[in-house]
Amino acid sequence: MLKQCRSLLSRSLQSAKWGDGFESRAAFSTSLQDFAATGNANGRVFAPYTIYKGKASLSISPVLPTFVKIDSDIGGLKVNRRGSMMLTFCPAIGERKYDWEQRQKFALSPTEVGSLISMGAHDASEFYHDPSMKSSNAGQVSKKLCIKAFDSGNGYMISLTVTNNILKSNEQFNIPVTTAEFAVLKTACSFALPHIMGWDRLTNQSPKGIKGSPSKVNPKQHFDLEWDR
Amino acid sequence: MLKQCRSLLSRSLQSAKWGDGFESRAAFSTSLQDFAATGNANGRVFAPYTIYKGKASLSISPVLPTFVKIDSDIGGLKVNRRGSMMLTFCPAIGERKYDWEQRQKFALSPTEVGSLISMGAHDASEFYHDPSMKSSNAGQVSKKLCIKAFDSGNGYMISLTVTNNILKSNEQFNIPVTTAEFAVLKTACSFALPHIMGWDRLTNQSPKGIKGSPSKVNPKQHFDLEWDR
Amino acid sequence: MLKQCRSLLSRSLQSAKWGDGFESRAAFSTSLQDFAATGNANGRVFAPYTIYKGKASLSISPVLPTFVKIDSDIGGLKVNRRGSMMLTFCPAIGERKYDWEQRQKFALSPTEVGSLISMGAHDASEFYHDPSMKSSNAGQVSKKLCIKAFDSGNGYMISLTVTNNILKSNEQFNIPVTTAEFAVLKTACSFALPHIMGWDRLTNQSPKGIKGSPSKVNPKQHFDLEWDR
Amino acid sequence: MLKQCRSLLSRSLQSAKWGDGFESRAAFSTSLQDFAATGNANGRVFAPYTIYKGKASLSISPVLPTFVKIDSDIGGLKVNRRGSMMLTFCPAIGERKYDWEQRQKFALSPTEVGSLISMGAHDASEFYHDPSMKSSNAGQVSKKLCIKAFDSGNGYMISLTVTNNILKSNEQFNIPVTTAEFAVLKTACSFALPHIMGWDRLTNQSPKGIKGSPSKVNPKQHFDLEWDR
Repeated sequence: MLKQCRSLLSRSLQSAKWGDGFESRAAFSTSLQDFAATGNANGRVFAPYTIYKGKASLSISPVLPTFVKIDSDIGGLKVNRRGSMMLTFCPAIGERKYDWEQRQKFALSPTEVGSLISMGAHDASEFYHDPSMKSSNAGQVSKKLCIKAFDSGNGYMISLTVTNNILKSNEQFNIPVTTAEFAVLKTACSFALPHIMGWDRLTNQSPKGIKGSPSKVNPKQHFDLEWDR
Repeated sequence: MLKQCRSLLSRSLQSAKWGDGFESRAAFSTSLQDFAATGNANGRVFAPYTIYKGKASLSISPVLPTFVKIDSDIGGLKVNRRGSMMLTFCPAIGERKYDWEQRQKFALSPTEVGSLISMGAHDASEFYHDPSMKSSNAGQVSKKLCIKAFDSGNGYMISLTVTNNILKSNEQFNIPVTTAEFAVLKTACSFALPHIMGWDRLTNQSPKGIKGSPSKVNPKQHFDLEWDR
Repeated sequence: MLKQCRSLLSRSLQSAKWGDGFESRAAFSTSLQDFAATGNANGRVFAPYTIYKGKASLSISPVLPTFVKIDSDIGGLKVNRRGSMMLTFCPAIGERKYDWEQRQKFALSPTEVGSLISMGAHDASEFYHDPSMKSSNAGQVSKKLCIKAFDSGNGYMISLTVTNNILKSNEQFNIPVTTAEFAVLKTACSFALPHIMGWDRLTNQSPKGIKGSPSKVNPKQHFDLEWDR
Repeated sequence: MLKQCRSLLSRSLQSAKWGDGFESRAAFSTSLQDFAATGNANGRVFAPYTIYKGKASLSISPVLPTFVKIDSDIGGLKVNRRGSMMLTFCPAIGERKYDWEQRQKFALSPTEVGSLISMGAHDASEFYHDPSMKSSNAGQVSKKLCIKAFDSGNGYMISLTVTNNILKSNEQFNIPVTTAEFAVLKTACSFALPHIMGWDRLTNQSPKGIKGSPSKVNPKQHFDLEWDR
């Protein structure tokens, strides 16, 4: 099988794409919004992976969890709001122009990310989000994300459908994704998964409590943890 | 194959699940215990990945190794107590209610984690822990963890059986796990494995000894290490 | 299948290869250039993975993205210039001698890296770069990188062709790569991919905004992000 | 296929194995030697993954590369001595006793690690090291590491043979490794590979040169790097 990726990059195109063109403006807008939402504005970095296609663009970027101090003498942090992988779709409104104002978003939970990264070359996945589920407004507005392999096995169609039964509106975004682009999604999502779960903070990097007096720890406590309730 | 993940998330359900519901209380209790055991309370983060099913819940969280200073002039640290992946099972006692008091734990060693992450879509693994092995009490209490693929290949049953031959008691927890949830387990465990082995500390991050005078090192010592005893 | 890797390393060869031989000089030259280009000279590390073959050598090294401050009160950073995996080919001009002056480079974009790391044992990929695309000089000079599995399935041929239609010149580099060497490329590129995308900075490591007052964040904002425009 | 891992861990066995038993002494000795060799004694961590079998034990531990300052005004670091994965074999001299004095070592290069981590369930790899290659003593002493899948596909035999043609001695170590243990080796080696290559230092973590004045960088230099010699 020949996977042919004709990038045909040029300096002029590059600077248009990454330099001072549309994406920077879009990125700027998004980052403001994301930073405001996460409360971690300073020191945050905005680096979405964006796939530009004829009818729409798809950007993917991790949203990290937030933490709160555990309210006790012992201290420590627990997850306050879980992280997600945020997919942002923008419709095309001209050649290489995408309308950020008409964007639609879909936040993949860790388990939904697990579904994406375990997809084979012939699989399909569907995810449904309903903002009003279990309320009286259930079913009024809903979002459906569909990831479906091409029959040929050399790529996927990623589709987002947003249905509003009150406004009788129905928006759809279709992004054909190559095997190479999907490999970036899978690798980047696999990398990001422990981070959006907050597990990147469960590391041995911090020297706290290590150099001090580790011998205070009763070596049996580990097994007590498993064996005693 | 269509992997259908109907998440049907809503704001109200979300806040119940991640906000102020059961999990936070459970998380709080666990973190106190884990923090006490590891001796690394301050700066520690509690972020378990929890799967809620009809009859029980399963939480998974890494337990990091502890280190002690090597008692010599040369210094350095060695592993004092190896890390593990702690699985915690809670029985359901009502709709979306799980009884933390009746929890049972199972600590996967690095090699047992290796077994889990190498499982294919049709494999099965069994792990046996006996707290009294090689003592006169051997066989009195035992735990058996079983991970078995569904015949359909689209998920696994994770079962924990705790047998107490003295009390004649036998507890069992069964958690059906989807392919997506298992992908999260595998990815998160693969990420965590080097950390519970303590290898995340074997990095080049620390500038110590690098900017100083690296030329003091005899370049042949490396090969001496392999060739000389 | 027997993968036979006769390394036949010796101390003398080692010191020639890694110590004071050609590679160090090459590395030195490259690092100067790369450091100058990235603007991150101090603290930067030069550690290419180099494959030496009979007619040419191939070095691969990540080039990190650069960032600029977002020009607003909210702060934060955005990617200024995307990163890449830089492949450098040098022709052989004698036994174990490679001519750095005649080197040719090819910078793989994140998506092109995705193509490389998703290649199976019988796949092929081609990448085309044209520095003058969409200008009046289009097609004058072009580069083509071809990665093609051997029919036997035990390795790949990596070829770079640089065509200059004005000078009527045509340079070609062919590097046969073993399965083991390609596994290093895939593993190292998978590791580097989130870094060249700038995602390694999207982590929870920084304590900023966490210990302060996380409760200021409205927990509904996350869902607002997905549901509101 | 049922992968049955009867760990049968007990508290008493655990403390013998990880607490104050043989391994700690061995670990202590090795760490001294490794620390001395790397010149990074302080702050270094010793955490080998050890497989204990009836006739021998096998420990695996990463040896990080060392760096030297680049001798110029521009600064930066380059690899002085490449890293490796060090395999250490000890013969058994009794039940759960292994003779550290009779250990033999084998240092896997990054490419040899690539060979190991790309092995399938039915593959085999062989590596040959000759300390005197290309000298008059070539062939006098040699080491051969063989990793060969069991016909059943559920594990590997790892064998080290050290042949001394002068002393007419021939030592052999055979370690049967389960699929689970090999999965740990592969995952841990994949994690360690970028570290022994020195690529973990090629990250965006350091804020140097980012917050300062990134706009000094000419955005075209990146493409100049690829296009200009």
